[in-house]
Amino acid sequence: MDAQQTRHVASAQALLARLRPLFEQAGGALARVCTKEGRLHGARLDEHQVATFELAWASADLLAAETALVRLDAASTELQALLALIFAVDAVGALLPRLEALYIELELPLAPLQQLGADASWAALRGAACGAQALTAAGRALVAAGDTVELGSVVLGESVLMAQNTFRRFAADVVAPQAEEIHRHDKTIPESLLQPMRDMGVFGLSIPESLGGTGPNEGEDATMMVVVTEALSEASLAAAGSLITRSEILSRALMSGGTAEQKSTWLPRIAAGDPLCAIAITEPDFGSDVASLSLKGTRTEGGWSLNGAKTWCTFAGKAGLLMVVTRTDPDRAAGHRGLSVLLVEKPSYDGHAFDFRQPGGGRLSGKAIPTIGYRGMHSFDLSFDDFLVPDANVIGESGGLGKGFYFTMAGMVGGRMQTSARACGVMRAALRASMRYTADRKVFGAPLQAYALTLAKLARMAARLAACRTLAYAIAEQLNAGGGRMEASLVKLLACRSAEMVTREALQLHGGMGYAEESAVSRYFVDARVLSIFEGAEETLALKVIGRGLLEDALETIRSPVNPGSLHP
Amino acid sequence: MDAQQTRHVASAQALLARLRPLFEQAGGALARVCTKEGRLHGARLDEHQVATFELAWASADLLAAETALVRLDAASTELQALLALIFAVDAVGALLPRLEALYIELELPLAPLQQLGADASWAALRGAACGAQALTAAGRALVAAGDTVELGSVVLGESVLMAQNTFRRFAADVVAPQAEEIHRHDKTIPESLLQPMRDMGVFGLSIPESLGGTGPNEGEDATMMVVVTEALSEASLAAAGSLITRSEILSRALMSGGTAEQKSTWLPRIAAGDPLCAIAITEPDFGSDVASLSLKGTRTEGGWSLNGAKTWCTFAGKAGLLMVVTRTDPDRAAGHRGLSVLLVEKPSYDGHAFDFRQPGGGRLSGKAIPTIGYRGMHSFDLSFDDFLVPDANVIGESGGLGKGFYFTMAGMVGGRMQTSARACGVMRAALRASMRYTADRKVFGAPLQAYALTLAKLARMAARLAACRTLAYAIAEQLNAGGGRMEASLVKLLACRSAEMVTREALQLHGGMGYAEESAVSRYFVDARVLSIFEGAEETLALKVIGRGLLEDALETIRSPVNPGSLHP
Repeated sequence: MDAQQTRHVASAQALLARLRPLFEQAGGALARVCTKEGRLHGARLDEHQVATFELAWASADLLAAETALVRLDAASTELQALLALIFAVDAVGALLPRLEALYIELELPLAPLQQLGADASWAALRGAACGAQALTAAGRALVAAGDTVELGSVVLGESVLMAQNTFRRFAADVVAPQAEEIHRHDKTIPESLLQPMRDMGVFGLSIPESLGGTGPNEGEDATMMVVVTEALSEASLAAAGSLITRSEILSRALMSGGTAEQKSTWLPRIAAGDPLCAIAITEPDFGSDVASLSLKGTRTEGGWSLNGAKTWCTFAGKAGLLMVVTRTDPDRAAGHRGLSVLLVEKPSYDGHAFDFRQPGGGRLSGKAIPTIGYRGMHSFDLSFDDFLVPDANVIGESGGLGKGFYFTMAGMVGGRMQTSARACGVMRAALRASMRYTADRKVFGAPLQAYALTLAKLARMAARLAACRTLAYAIAEQLNAGGGRMEASLVKLLACRSAEMVTREALQLHGGMGYAEESAVSRYFVDARVLSIFEGAEETLALKVIGRGLLEDALETIRSPVNPGSLHP
Repeated sequence: MDAQQTRHVASAQALLARLRPLFEQAGGALARVCTKEGRLHGARLDEHQVATFELAWASADLLAAETALVRLDAASTELQALLALIFAVDAVGALLPRLEALYIELELPLAPLQQLGADASWAALRGAACGAQALTAAGRALVAAGDTVELGSVVLGESVLMAQNTFRRFAADVVAPQAEEIHRHDKTIPESLLQPMRDMGVFGLSIPESLGGTGPNEGEDATMMVVVTEALSEASLAAAGSLITRSEILSRALMSGGTAEQKSTWLPRIAAGDPLCAIAITEPDFGSDVASLSLKGTRTEGGWSLNGAKTWCTFAGKAGLLMVVTRTDPDRAAGHRGLSVLLVEKPSYDGHAFDFRQPGGGRLSGKAIPTIGYRGMHSFDLSFDDFLVPDANVIGESGGLGKGFYFTMAGMVGGRMQTSARACGVMRAALRASMRYTADRKVFGAPLQAYALTLAKLARMAARLAACRTLAYAIAEQLNAGGGRMEASLVKLLACRSAEMVTREALQLHGGMGYAEESAVSRYFVDARVLSIFEGAEETLALKVIGRGLLEDALETIRSPVNPGSLHP
């Protein structure tokens, strides 16, 4: 980037540096009103849901803008700087009114926010980054860079880059040609896709090599997981990009709570993709409310008899191994401490329904729920009738009883991180398709791409993708270093909503063609819509994970001696 | 509404009254930079597309907010006032940054906008209308009013109210039960829906009774058209709500340019729905660019021979009469003055493809384009090969040659007005489904509807629907009075995007169920997505109709003696 851009970046960073404490003040004030006797209080949190939701979104925009700018350096291209500035200005543009609304809600003085909003440097920055000229210049730079350009400030090591190349090639050459067919006819993912993915070791990415996987023996490699998931999702969210999430969650649960024998039995097989896995948590009456799950396990000779229903169990037909969160403690008052994780073995089925009967009379039947997108994986309604699971298949065996909630949670962070990567992959596909289409499609005598509005739209789509990628890879690094748990939910929140926005604009740029099933963007659009629903719905993440986390942190700050403040204003 | 609400409404109106001239100032300044030698200039308009797009959206938000408030009166319910205030505050919240960006772009002084933004009355209004308490109160009032509540300030005469009841009952009892089946299996709209609609006279709504229709003999009744379209669209955009648009456009073209004989031949038949109609304008290489259409008509003995392709011809299979915009002047330089409208008669076909051969060897074949929603109507690719159309089927016969563009335009305003009504119908369906679902669905031990965030979301969805309905019916009144042509595009722009937003939130409130094809909101979501694309794509309307209209008006104001201003700053 050039000297002028460097100055703009510094100016944007200075603004964000002023906004950060103003944001924290809102968090502190909200924490105070949600607190009773020194602790966050359920009813008060519920009462302030709207403000908490806004706070969570504000934190996502703020962190993404900060990260987009701080990751720029002298080696960054002009395009990278242009896009980071566009995102930062748009993010501040969204942040300021959110914070104002929070300040009004919490009766904090508005003056500091208004002063910032009226600052000449803010107006100058808006013109410089998001004025019509700047947007079209960014659009032109994007178009000139071509649709294979790498967006975001992402620095990858050699082995990860090699993997990226390999998986992108596989995605483009093998997955993409089958993606439309699988989507439009709601087919099951074929072995012609599954077998090469097994061979490439994708199902063992979060399992250490020493335990039979392809992950590192020491520490984490979330970056590799993100790279692989993003590359596969670019070709298809449903036929490739979402396969790894299941083995991630199950292998984490096993590593977290399994006995030595369970680990040695199952982890190498999971890593080999034989059996394939599925995760059964959600029940018809309970979505995000894990503590109320009611699929009942009854003690029998040498094991457990399962009765009840699960729903939205994605890939349950094809999978040979289901991770089933089961209520093994008949006392419902035990809540989430009455849950255990049972491993259900079953044959692998193609198609949309199955009915598996055990020799002793137990039964597990499944029926796929037709959905508007995310096809290929198939999400099943499951019904268990006196279905027997041996003690050996309880994760942690007797020592694991009642710990199912914690074992399940062990995989959730990785699942959310992966989902951010899935969103980035879908966005990249939608942006690239839009770049190609607007180059070819002529309107009023010139390619769509010759028009200022098209260039501005492409620039904003690219800016959003770049910011989400930058943040996703930054948080993957945090996970590798042992942190970033809340942030994984935060980037999931932002990237998934961003994927909805980017695919919406991509479809719009394609006009009628975008609405036709034969154009890939129509699939990106309906696929993207699932992202804000699964792996922690937007509202659940914003309120229960991010919002709550921010408020806990704010309380901690208030409590700490360097920042004394009253909890009872 | 009570005294406090009346004060809030007055305060909001005072703010909008301050914003209006600030908006006009932006329009004037933009008109100046887009002008050359006293007229709007193509290249300069293109250069300022981004600003023009923003101006169009700002005008939509501003007019909708003004209308929502001005239509309140002493008889308005508390709920109506709450929702109008929510929309107005959200609209101003969107307007202020848009205007700021325009002011920065156009180098206008920001101080007046910043002063307004920092005004204590604005902060007070935000808290009163869109604070968490206000939003949840509005959500509770909405829920208490029940899902059959009438939203928006819409006053209907007795006969229109009767029609509304009739069509709502028909939609609920006859259309709704078939809607899912038609959508999921992409069926053709069955006679069991078409025949009662014929019987109810829906295809003659824009044709005067004296010419065989069901419309008024004097003036317009756009209100009736909106009521009927909205009621049908609530049950299904694709299986009922979109049928009338075609007869509207074709009958307007006939009334605008047809000979007396053509009118007496065709209008009663169109009104009777026998034949059903379809409109063929768009071509594979030309979407919104009507002047470049190239389907070629060659003079033959007693008529025209058609060769070429059309695309996105909705309902072309079932229809027995196609309105085909044809280039009858071989000189391409004639642009839109080389176009004529030809009436193509063909058999009615069910299914997704047809191949019609004339005895003399002419051929018209069609193939439906599979789409993610808006199914049932089926949009066709059409191919004409030496297809013969007699002179008698040229609208206006020899006198109509070269006037096809104008005849086509005659129906566009009505088509856009109807599309706003379609959007309102889809939004109403999505909101009502969400109200019911959130009442039934329990999460963490209480119905979703018990939570503040759910109530706030429902309130904002309802506020948006109410504002769009209020504006749509207000503009229908303007059309009845002979005005409102640009405004019909403006409400189309706003209502269609609003339908995307409302159906998105409806799906989100349904969680996983919303993504399942068996839930109606999944259909509302994919159906709503077509609205911003057809009947004038969002970008085309914003730039070419609304933006251009605003700039023309601004130029007029600048030129007028009461408001002298230089055209050459």
